[in-house]
Amino acid sequence: MKRYGMVIGIDKERLNEYKTYHSEIWPEVAEALKKANIRNYSIYYKDGLLFSYYEYIGTDFENDMRIMDENETVKKWQEIMNTVQQPLKTRKEGEWWSEMDEIFHLE
Amino acid sequence: MKRYGMVIGIDKERLNEYKTYHSEIWPEVAEALKKANIRNYSIYYKDGLLFSYYEYIGTDFENDMRIMDENETVKKWQEIMNTVQQPLKTRKEGEWWSEMDEIFHLE
Repeated sequence: MKRYGMVIGIDKERLNEYKTYHSEIWPEVAEALKKANIRNYSIYYKDGLLFSYYEYIGTDFENDMRIMDENETVKKWQEIMNTVQQPLKTRKEGEWWSEMDEIFHLE
Repeated sequence: MKRYGMVIGIDKERLNEYKTYHSEIWPEVAEALKKANIRNYSIYYKDGLLFSYYEYIGTDFENDMRIMDENETVKKWQEIMNTVQQPLKTRKEGEWWSEMDEIFHLE
């Protein structure tokens, strides 16, 4: 299992809209996340930033993400979220959410 | 079980020092966290911010935190970390790390 911590900005004026979407996540999106071996997935908000934490239980992360991103419903969902999210200027090439560095873990 | 997401700033010039401390956490501090019913505790870094995620499996969070904070070794540890961490100006009264709002969770 590998843990991921990610961060991205959000248009504060659309936070409530973003919350509403996530309180009623489309079933096919939730199912695609499960199929992509994502577990224990949380998103937190503070001061214009979204922080996400999840655990990946599969063996080929890139491939699982590719399959998920090719799902038409997931694409529609992401298109909406992309208009609300504001990627950090410091993100690495190819990133949308920025992967953070894990500097501590205690079971 | 209750999940917590927290955020705080850090003196970037002392990030390596902070990392080193956390790669060799004092055994008594780790033990105190366990006794306080904290599990699956991760800290991430990006752009001058520390994000932490942990799961609380006890039944009296305030009391468990109080007992942990009264531990002399934990106090010494926190005194050092407090000189490296930079609390957000937007933190709530009584906070050091700022608690974030959970806006999504998927098992």
